[in-house]
Amino acid sequence: MSIPSTQSPRQTPDPQISSAATRLQRIESSRVFQSSVIFIIILSAIAIGAKTYDLPPLIGQLISILDYAITLFFLVEIILRFSAHSDRKRFLADGWNLFDTIIVVGSLLPVGNAEAILIGRLLRVFRVLRLVSAIPELRALINALLKAIPKMGYIGLLMFIIFYIYGAIGSLFFSNINETLWGDVSISMLTLFRVATFEDWTDVMYETMAVFPLSWVFYLSFIFLTAFVFLNMMVGVILDVMTAEHNSETAALAHQERESMVEKIDLMQSQITDMHQLLKERSQPT
Amino acid sequence: MSIPSTQSPRQTPDPQISSAATRLQRIESSRVFQSSVIFIIILSAIAIGAKTYDLPPLIGQLISILDYAITLFFLVEIILRFSAHSDRKRFLADGWNLFDTIIVVGSLLPVGNAEAILIGRLLRVFRVLRLVSAIPELRALINALLKAIPKMGYIGLLMFIIFYIYGAIGSLFFSNINETLWGDVSISMLTLFRVATFEDWTDVMYETMAVFPLSWVFYLSFIFLTAFVFLNMMVGVILDVMTAEHNSETAALAHQERESMVEKIDLMQSQITDMHQLLKERSQPT
Amino acid sequence: MSIPSTQSPRQTPDPQISSAATRLQRIESSRVFQSSVIFIIILSAIAIGAKTYDLPPLIGQLISILDYAITLFFLVEIILRFSAHSDRKRFLADGWNLFDTIIVVGSLLPVGNAEAILIGRLLRVFRVLRLVSAIPELRALINALLKAIPKMGYIGLLMFIIFYIYGAIGSLFFSNINETLWGDVSISMLTLFRVATFEDWTDVMYETMAVFPLSWVFYLSFIFLTAFVFLNMMVGVILDVMTAEHNSETAALAHQERESMVEKIDLMQSQITDMHQLLKERSQPT
Amino acid sequence: MSIPSTQSPRQTPDPQISSAATRLQRIESSRVFQSSVIFIIILSAIAIGAKTYDLPPLIGQLISILDYAITLFFLVEIILRFSAHSDRKRFLADGWNLFDTIIVVGSLLPVGNAEAILIGRLLRVFRVLRLVSAIPELRALINALLKAIPKMGYIGLLMFIIFYIYGAIGSLFFSNINETLWGDVSISMLTLFRVATFEDWTDVMYETMAVFPLSWVFYLSFIFLTAFVFLNMMVGVILDVMTAEHNSETAALAHQERESMVEKIDLMQSQITDMHQLLKERSQPT
Repeated sequence: MSIPSTQSPRQTPDPQISSAATRLQRIESSRVFQSSVIFIIILSAIAIGAKTYDLPPLIGQLISILDYAITLFFLVEIILRFSAHSDRKRFLADGWNLFDTIIVVGSLLPVGNAEAILIGRLLRVFRVLRLVSAIPELRALINALLKAIPKMGYIGLLMFIIFYIYGAIGSLFFSNINETLWGDVSISMLTLFRVATFEDWTDVMYETMAVFPLSWVFYLSFIFLTAFVFLNMMVGVILDVMTAEHNSETAALAHQERESMVEKIDLMQSQITDMHQLLKERSQPT
Repeated sequence: MSIPSTQSPRQTPDPQISSAATRLQRIESSRVFQSSVIFIIILSAIAIGAKTYDLPPLIGQLISILDYAITLFFLVEIILRFSAHSDRKRFLADGWNLFDTIIVVGSLLPVGNAEAILIGRLLRVFRVLRLVSAIPELRALINALLKAIPKMGYIGLLMFIIFYIYGAIGSLFFSNINETLWGDVSISMLTLFRVATFEDWTDVMYETMAVFPLSWVFYLSFIFLTAFVFLNMMVGVILDVMTAEHNSETAALAHQERESMVEKIDLMQSQITDMHQLLKERSQPT
Repeated sequence: MSIPSTQSPRQTPDPQISSAATRLQRIESSRVFQSSVIFIIILSAIAIGAKTYDLPPLIGQLISILDYAITLFFLVEIILRFSAHSDRKRFLADGWNLFDTIIVVGSLLPVGNAEAILIGRLLRVFRVLRLVSAIPELRALINALLKAIPKMGYIGLLMFIIFYIYGAIGSLFFSNINETLWGDVSISMLTLFRVATFEDWTDVMYETMAVFPLSWVFYLSFIFLTAFVFLNMMVGVILDVMTAEHNSETAALAHQERESMVEKIDLMQSQITDMHQLLKERSQPT
Repeated sequence: MSIPSTQSPRQTPDPQISSAATRLQRIESSRVFQSSVIFIIILSAIAIGAKTYDLPPLIGQLISILDYAITLFFLVEIILRFSAHSDRKRFLADGWNLFDTIIVVGSLLPVGNAEAILIGRLLRVFRVLRLVSAIPELRALINALLKAIPKMGYIGLLMFIIFYIYGAIGSLFFSNINETLWGDVSISMLTLFRVATFEDWTDVMYETMAVFPLSWVFYLSFIFLTAFVFLNMMVGVILDVMTAEHNSETAALAHQERESMVEKIDLMQSQITDMHQLLKERSQPT
């Protein structure tokens, strides 16, 4: 952990340091280094998984040592990446760097008493997420997913409104029938989510139909609104984002080709207009 | 509630009143006003939800007061919007205005005896729906959804026919086996909806297979017809509506570009024909 | 039922008969006639549904009389349509006419003893299907669906092969564990369909995992193969058919526009070549 | 089995053998031969299925004899195809040939003791898969599916990471509540797969909510991440692959048409430039 002090990362303009940064950058972007990072993350994931099994104490201790080594490796790696970064002040401005830093710092938190051990282990679990930032293809996938979020946000809000209204109505009418399913608006919304996933929803319905025979209208209208219409809309939005990207490529190519055609035609046009003028001039005096 | 009388909304052509309307319009379309409307709706939703919990009487009373205040606010807001509307006679012609007016008027209905309280509370729940009309993005979402309805209508009818036929057959053959599931055609259709959502459908099937060993054909053909084919068709229709909008934009741009190209070519064509004529004329006499 | 004999439908070329056919055609294609057909079909559907309820004997008798009247109406209608058809020999060549004729003739079959009554009622149920052929939009929907069938046929075959292989393996290994679920290959395939619909599939899995701890591989691989991959492929195929139709329209328009542009350019080209020749000829002698 | 020795398949360049190969090729690619191969595969599938039923010993013996005959037929067929192949050394380079050879060789393995019989029967089941390689349309379907695999691979990896993290967390917190569902990370992942398929997931949730009342966050976030977002992404990827193929065709046609248009315009351009030059030259001296 003395590495940052020996490197004095604050003095970026110094050329000697800068060449060190370039060397670090070369190391950091090398295939071997990146592969070993992915390998260590997988090792870390295996260690986390192994801990959930009943293991002999010796292996348990070995895993603990491995765990410390992995924590140290991740710390060194993030410091290395920070040092190799061209603009250190803006290092955390990149979402993925911030994401990695939080995970590494999170697993450094001191674990003292028995309760903290659980939290410490929980934080270590999230180290598996570093696999997402370490593999470029997964990073691209997540970026594509994030693009769809703004549009999905409003669909989510609309969904929430529907759940809230049905939850309030359900709680209003059915709370006397079954307190555990329709006790208050939040419990009702959880029950409705269950209905939306079709999980034993008929049991819920038959129970209320015994008191309100027409309550199937409540369930069927809810299922139609959520499960059918909105799921389809969600698919539509995602496809919209995905095909928009694809289509825009071919459309842009076609547009560009048409543009160049127009340019050529315009050039021809001006020449022809000139020729036309010349011919006319000569025709008239004759 | 004295605002409409002081404004005399019937005399639209009066210039003085009109300027008042313009001022109202400016207020109504201001960010602050619209944000506060959304805030009040959310407050109203929270109040509705809070009522479903067991609360100390004091908070209950506070919520009741808040409820009255919200009802008043909504009334004032709808009157304000009505007054600010350019053509007051056609105010309700706009679907969203009609929607808001019905919700506001609905929650004004007098609540007297115990039974009416339930209905009064139910009407208040629908005030949450005003969030949909208050947020433009949600309004656009709903409009897009409504566009898909005409096409979905016929798919829904086809679905209903399939459900009806299977329901009638199921009631004809299975009503002696299980009266609660196949008693008459409407109960059978509800059971079939359950089968279509895969909710414990094998329990239903195994019961009838004990009497009619080949009745799995009934269930499997029904599931194939509804769950697979029609759900896919529904997705298809929605995508059709969504991609139609997207594609038509790029297609329209391409069409327009080609049109302008054709125009240029036509102009060139006419000039060339003219030149051709001139050149020929001169060639022949020589 | 004397209508066909008075019309002598075999002698089509006779002009007098032909004008009668034209009149029939006018009647048959009139809005009023088509609406009344749809109305009668809906009435027939209601009669079928009503029979599944416990009704007082009087109403039951009324429905029986209505039933005879509907049967007669449908018979008259199909004969009318047959008579009005331009080429009577090829009347049944049209799929929808064949479909209607089979349904009408089917419901005419004599119903004698108690067993036949059930079959007679079953055949009457299918009269509801005539709604599909009576409403043009539904007919278009079904036609679109039928287009997707050839492609879906092979996916269905592939699905069947997967079910058969897993069914045979399941029956081979698990028939000793649970005879009712894995007794033979056909029972196993039904169980696998249940697994594919996620209906209590974990109960099936946990039972076999007690004997073969690794049998989760069997279930998970099966679920991945069927539920995920193939459902998506099915969606893909349907969308393919649907977007193919839509895209081809805009693509065809674009193609046509480009074609007309090429024609114009070709015409210009020939004129320019001619002009070029003329100018060159005149340049050389100078 | 004497066919390969009489043909001496190693001496490909020999013209006499080559003509024999051509004759074999003609046989092998004939409709009759291919149809009979498909017929034998279906016969083999029926024999495999029939064995899972309780049959009288005579039929059982007949099926065993049929089984030997089918094994022999498949062996002869694969040798024939190998002999007829233009480049015998590269016969196995084609995936489908390798696939067929493995299945045929697999079913040839000697079956001695009782345990081996089960494995022998298992290998025979896979012979049904030969139907996939025998029918060209199914082969095309599988090829299309394989194209989507690279993209799906990363989605699968992302899914696995999510399952692993939730599995580790679930095992960490819930292993004391229910050992059979959350015992270790692999059992937890199986339980999570069950939750992802909505199979009695509320039972799992209610159990842990009794200890951790907020554990619904765990389940709901998991369901949102997997069932909703990722299934949609998968659909998106597959559609991407499918529409990419379709679109590229029309796009390629459009591109080609525009290219030929540009060529024509370029030709015109050069002629016009030439004409322009000629006209100008003549204008200036005048």
